Amino acid sequence: MQKNVVPHQFSVGRAERNTMKGHKSLLLWFTGLSGSGKSTIANAVEKELVNNGMHTYTLDGDNVRRGLNNNLSFSAEDRTENIRRIAEVANLMVDAGLVVLAAFVSPYEKDRENIKQIVGPENFVEIFVNTPLEECERRDVKGLYAKARAGEINNFTGINAPYEAPVNPDIEIDTTQLSVVEAVEVIMNTIENKLGKE
Amino acid sequence: MQKNVVPHQFSVGRAERNTMKGHKSLLLWFTGLSGSGKSTIANAVEKELVNNGMHTYTLDGDNVRRGLNNNLSFSAEDRTENIRRIAEVANLMVDAGLVVLAAFVSPYEKDRENIKQIVGPENFVEIFVNTPLEECERRDVKGLYAKARAGEINNFTGINAPYEAPVNPDIEIDTTQLSVVEAVEVIMNTIENKLGKE
Repeated sequence: MQKNVVPHQFSVGRAERNTMKGHKSLLLWFTGLSGSGKSTIANAVEKELVNNGMHTYTLDGDNVRRGLNNNLSFSAEDRTENIRRIAEVANLMVDAGLVVLAAFVSPYEKDRENIKQIVGPENFVEIFVNTPLEECERRDVKGLYAKARAGEINNFTGINAPYEAPVNPDIEIDTTQLSVVEAVEVIMNTIENKLGKE
Repeated sequence: MQKNVVPHQFSVGRAERNTMKGHKSLLLWFTGLSGSGKSTIANAVEKELVNNGMHTYTLDGDNVRRGLNNNLSFSAEDRTENIRRIAEVANLMVDAGLVVLAAFVSPYEKDRENIKQIVGPENFVEIFVNTPLEECERRDVKGLYAKARAGEINNFTGINAPYEAPVNPDIEIDTTQLSVVEAVEVIMNTIENKLGKE
């Protein structure tokens, strides 16, 4: 299948892009239940990175499910393909010199391990946004838990599909203890060295 | 299938990214036969853009077929999905503020029309790298035409699969008349206004 593909020599590479932008590339992967605060924290981190002159992009369900992955369902098989494609896009964006933030439930350990392998462990920061199911369901910002409980949504993580919590994440944010501002601080402190920017 | 998806408010948007980078986003789509010179010209244009301080990325078979689209064949159906995914990735990268260069045979008119709709006509520049089949086959840089003629590769555009030439491309490069340097100049002159950079 791949025999039509012969590598080309690129004239502009990742190193040159990183030099131009003044910082290294990285993938910050936010995992956690729906309503855990992943996107909120990711957006706040992105804002902070941009304020520090870094070139970023955020991938999440809003921009990925409506476009690239609009032909995938929420079945276990399609969730795996969903995460694989996102990881591949993130890998291209990391190659493009960006700090990529990705906020996805990503409930399966094997899928998250796959992301790490696709982008390379040195480019990957796993951030577990740890908010208890009870709290997520209490907030129910999007009204999805109520629908899932009513049987209107199948394969909804936490209700009728499993969430495999990260065993050893790079960063764990307990949102019942930390504010968004504090979470941003924890994350920024942890990634500072990896970004290679003072 | 999409009822789990509820839009979020992004804190950093395309306008802010464009301002930060000092130029607008754009997708330069290079179409033409295998061996027509698409990647060579795209790489030269990218080099020129980077030399002018612009933030770019190049998508081509090398980085896309080995990753994101490594589960697609070269059948007509999979070629359509191949191009659709690339267009969606390009759309995300355009949203990220980049000038995206994409070099793909992309033989079907309807697929190229689809790209234009996905990224939006105002962000799309179709560049037809027009090199006659005889010339591509004479060069046969990757030895693929010989293999296709020998029946070792199916669905090879120009040999045993069709190429639908663009009817009204934004730019047409006749590589039998123009050098790479001249082609870069034609393209740069045409896109200058769209980039919004002096």
